[in-house]
Amino acid sequence: MSNVQVTFLPNNVSIEVARGETVLRAAMAAGVHINASCGGDGTCGKCRVMVEAGSVEGETSDRISAEDREKGYRLACKTTVQGDVTIRIPVESAVDISALQRQAPRRTATVKQIGLEEIKEQGLFLPAVEKRYLELTPPDTQDHLPDVTRLVNHLRLQHDEHGLEVSLPVIRQIPSVFREQDFKVTVTLARPVRSSGKTQIIRVEPGDTTDRNYAVAMDIGTTTIYGQLVDLVSGKVVAENGDFNGQVSYGEDVITRIMFAEKPGGLETLQRVVIETVNKVLTRILKQSKIAREEISLITLAGNTTMTQLLLKVEPRHIRRAPYVPTASIYPTIRATDLGIALDDHVTALVYPQVSSYVGGDIVAGVMGSGMYRSEALTLFMDIGTNAEVVIGNKDWMACAACSAGPAFEGGGIQFGMRAAKGAIEDFSIDPETLEPMLMTIGNVRPKGICGSGLIIIVATLFEMGVIDNQGKFDRDLNTPRIRATDNIYEYVLAFADQTQIDRDITINEIDIENLIRAKGAIYSGCTTLLKEVGMQLDDVEQILLAGGFGSYVDLERAMIIGLLPEVAPEKVVYVGNSSLLGARMSALTNSVRQQVVGVTNMMTNFELSETPSYMDNYVASLFLPHTDMDRFPRLKTRLEERRALAAKIRAHGNA
Amino acid sequence: MSNVQVTFLPNNVSIEVARGETVLRAAMAAGVHINASCGGDGTCGKCRVMVEAGSVEGETSDRISAEDREKGYRLACKTTVQGDVTIRIPVESAVDISALQRQAPRRTATVKQIGLEEIKEQGLFLPAVEKRYLELTPPDTQDHLPDVTRLVNHLRLQHDEHGLEVSLPVIRQIPSVFREQDFKVTVTLARPVRSSGKTQIIRVEPGDTTDRNYAVAMDIGTTTIYGQLVDLVSGKVVAENGDFNGQVSYGEDVITRIMFAEKPGGLETLQRVVIETVNKVLTRILKQSKIAREEISLITLAGNTTMTQLLLKVEPRHIRRAPYVPTASIYPTIRATDLGIALDDHVTALVYPQVSSYVGGDIVAGVMGSGMYRSEALTLFMDIGTNAEVVIGNKDWMACAACSAGPAFEGGGIQFGMRAAKGAIEDFSIDPETLEPMLMTIGNVRPKGICGSGLIIIVATLFEMGVIDNQGKFDRDLNTPRIRATDNIYEYVLAFADQTQIDRDITINEIDIENLIRAKGAIYSGCTTLLKEVGMQLDDVEQILLAGGFGSYVDLERAMIIGLLPEVAPEKVVYVGNSSLLGARMSALTNSVRQQVVGVTNMMTNFELSETPSYMDNYVASLFLPHTDMDRFPRLKTRLEERRALAAKIRAHGNA
Repeated sequence: MSNVQVTFLPNNVSIEVARGETVLRAAMAAGVHINASCGGDGTCGKCRVMVEAGSVEGETSDRISAEDREKGYRLACKTTVQGDVTIRIPVESAVDISALQRQAPRRTATVKQIGLEEIKEQGLFLPAVEKRYLELTPPDTQDHLPDVTRLVNHLRLQHDEHGLEVSLPVIRQIPSVFREQDFKVTVTLARPVRSSGKTQIIRVEPGDTTDRNYAVAMDIGTTTIYGQLVDLVSGKVVAENGDFNGQVSYGEDVITRIMFAEKPGGLETLQRVVIETVNKVLTRILKQSKIAREEISLITLAGNTTMTQLLLKVEPRHIRRAPYVPTASIYPTIRATDLGIALDDHVTALVYPQVSSYVGGDIVAGVMGSGMYRSEALTLFMDIGTNAEVVIGNKDWMACAACSAGPAFEGGGIQFGMRAAKGAIEDFSIDPETLEPMLMTIGNVRPKGICGSGLIIIVATLFEMGVIDNQGKFDRDLNTPRIRATDNIYEYVLAFADQTQIDRDITINEIDIENLIRAKGAIYSGCTTLLKEVGMQLDDVEQILLAGGFGSYVDLERAMIIGLLPEVAPEKVVYVGNSSLLGARMSALTNSVRQQVVGVTNMMTNFELSETPSYMDNYVASLFLPHTDMDRFPRLKTRLEERRALAAKIRAHGNA
Repeated sequence: MSNVQVTFLPNNVSIEVARGETVLRAAMAAGVHINASCGGDGTCGKCRVMVEAGSVEGETSDRISAEDREKGYRLACKTTVQGDVTIRIPVESAVDISALQRQAPRRTATVKQIGLEEIKEQGLFLPAVEKRYLELTPPDTQDHLPDVTRLVNHLRLQHDEHGLEVSLPVIRQIPSVFREQDFKVTVTLARPVRSSGKTQIIRVEPGDTTDRNYAVAMDIGTTTIYGQLVDLVSGKVVAENGDFNGQVSYGEDVITRIMFAEKPGGLETLQRVVIETVNKVLTRILKQSKIAREEISLITLAGNTTMTQLLLKVEPRHIRRAPYVPTASIYPTIRATDLGIALDDHVTALVYPQVSSYVGGDIVAGVMGSGMYRSEALTLFMDIGTNAEVVIGNKDWMACAACSAGPAFEGGGIQFGMRAAKGAIEDFSIDPETLEPMLMTIGNVRPKGICGSGLIIIVATLFEMGVIDNQGKFDRDLNTPRIRATDNIYEYVLAFADQTQIDRDITINEIDIENLIRAKGAIYSGCTTLLKEVGMQLDDVEQILLAGGFGSYVDLERAMIIGLLPEVAPEKVVYVGNSSLLGARMSALTNSVRQQVVGVTNMMTNFELSETPSYMDNYVASLFLPHTDMDRFPRLKTRLEERRALAAKIRAHGNA
């Protein structure tokens, strides 16, 4: 889709957006405020704008009279831009507050596509399973070598393959497979985890099938399980699919799952249902790709420590009990069928190692999959969810910790919090004078609640606009019906009941804000504690890798305003997506990941923050917006000072 | 039992025998002839002797009148010696033929007891599975190491154990086992096959159980399966038992088994029944030893190539088809339960490698178990059965071959041949003048047939006494009813019908003798061909190792007379027993056997005799008693010359 330019007046701000984008979203992306209470649903009628020039499309609305429509008025939320356009926002204020309205435009992290070419260039494209087509010399009266010896000798002499081992199921196939096409065969080689280990011959097929070699990568998430079918010849993902982890019925989070696993038969149940989900996802991606099940030679899996232990039927009870030890860090390679995974008997399941009870295989997978383990640059890796995990380091050293962030970023502990789903307020701005909001919801429908990324934007905006102070308290002097105290708790009304789907006012109150501050404080102080323990500072960080679904939506500038992220140039922040899945895929594509993962895991020094003396001080200092020490956020500090001066000037001018 | 001295007159030959031995067997052992036709049954009454001095016991017989008994006459077969005795054999001849009667005494091979002390002294007592008792430091708030990491670190730091791997079933047990006795545990370590491989931790138990560590060794024979339960702490065999291989119902020999395996479902059936026998033997030795099934940590198995492939369910069809290739030489370590063996999931099954289709794991086990693989001395290893296998070499090189001996040594192809069972003629001598026989049967009952070791003695004796010539043809001029032609085939009557259990004359004829000559010729020429191919001679052989049940019974001197064994000093011949079982046991007791077996197997150069040009000449030269070239048997040559001179002298004297 081609881009078009949208210019907003009177602010005179321009932005490029995709043709077909709504005017309201274009304004939000540009940092231009338009009152809008219904999330883009078209019902509140507040987002009236005047199309001054250019081509737009959009349905008629009873909120705009035919006459006004004729004049060019439209609802910004229901009008899409079809070419370069100029939009005028009605000025209701006596003063020009456009400068005050101006905010940094939205900017999410750069998405890092894992570069297959880069991997190939670096000689790292060495799939964990490989095929070789061989034309063996058939035995005769002068040559009685056993079939397997014949094969192994050929691979040694013609393909420089040493230290080979042939599994019994393959030995059983060899006599007939070899003779099917006169000793012309394709063998599948599974590479060893250690370079000194043996290469396993896991499959033999008659003829040449080297163009068909596949693996499956899976992220075993607490909530969802996601799988990809990877073509090991091209390195490409040929199918992907996911589903809710069947364990969700037995508890939403890891702690309730562990408690369930402690009941008689509980562990067996949880293992069975997660494997059922794995098999369901597997069947889907096989169907989608039209690849036969027996063509899969490998499955790689990554999950957090609890998910990993449940997957492997290893009792997780000590994960939730002091001193919180997991059972194992490194797991051996396991036969997939031993876990109940519906793949052939020769398929190996590779499971990512764990660092500690709360820094699990998903994080190790992220470190490996993102390439952090081979990066020179000092990197901060953050996976933000209920438990945020942070890793700091580079190819030479790494420190990591789990931060008990609580569920605020997933909408937990927030009165109107919700998961990122249709109706969740995902974007927000506020008119600096009237304090009227501009709301965007997922799906452009009337709001139902607030999702994590929306919450960050709301709190950051309220703070930058001076509606709340650095402790998250509302300015009691502001005069608007949207700020009020309910049961002695101050709150801001994001949407009145008649504009919502829930027939109640949707608000954000000081307790919500406090919870968010605690969550972001836990993460920020986790990072600073780790850095301090290794004698470094945030300034030394050369790049930030964001992982997890959350990371792709979070607005970087606003995450820095609330002090969730340290203030760095936004281009230093890279989004790596589902890093668990990425790591799983990378360990199928390049055996060097598998060979190095044990060393990397051992190198990852885990800090239990609750037992790290400096942590509590760092945490307390972080319980402010953005932090007690504003000098850590110089850009924000400057902006707030300029805004304050500007506001004073406007007030003076307005009063004049 | 104490020994007593028996002196035979008029020969004046003395021998030490165990108190309680029969006079007949004492005479046989001393090489003294006493006529005896009924095998020691007491019915023919021919073995009358006079007890001149000393104490004997024995029942009365209607073959000895009360008067004669009073004079000291007894039946040698029914009279046991109870102290030093002097026995006179009635001389029926006009001439003194005692010198002619004299033969080399019976001498079987020295039995080699595998020296556990020797193994320990050489530092080779390194069981393939070992236990270690560990007192781990429990985790606390300052020490969150995962359980498995804690274990592996402890073993590395306190026990110098590196390259450890923990299997998933063990990981599953660890959390609860560790906490049962406050992190005091015993672990079972399974040593790697290659020294560079990983040591597997295959079991964890609470507390100290290091005094209980067991393995099972099994010989998977074509006919019988024999198992031993080995205490890996003391190195001793604590129970042993055997049974017929259940596959016997599907064919007696390997070829008929292979043919059965080619039928639909045949392979699966044969695998199932052999495992049933393995499990039956296992249950017996567990019951016998009162050791719990879960205390077994290892099973080692050895069998010939066909038995090994059937055990592992690897189709054996190409073993019996030109160019006779087995499927594999080396098999990976296999989970015992994957084969259906009723042992715990963590138990590994080690299967001996094969050299070729007819030199199998039983022979490799013999080479390893007998210590031949680490011997400086040039050794000839012979396992004599339907297929005789021979290995020549020492620790630096080995050549081997299977000789198609045919079943003569097991009684096959011999008119009255039978397996070594009750009633089988197992020993024989002949009166040089009357040509009357002296027969001993297994169980001292009337004869039913001839077993392999008896056949060798019969033919050797007939040859040495000049009854047959070096082509196995009877001297047509001898005047005795025992030599006759039936259907134009000359034969010697060993026992007339009235003295047998089968109501028929038991004879040995020229076809039988020809078959034996072919069988021994195949083996002897196999040995000489191997030696010639490696540029050596029989004179260079420093020791002969005899393996298999046959080896313990065969009379060495007579095996050399017929040319089955090369003529060497009898003390150079050592009997190693069931070498397959011995090798299986040794690979449980000393991991160095397992680590070296692959190298040894690869070093064993297999010769297909039928395709080795020099073989046919050697074979044809061997189709004589003992060989066309008498100079290869100098002791026998001298003896025969002396005997001929003596016979001539006696004849001259007798005629005088």
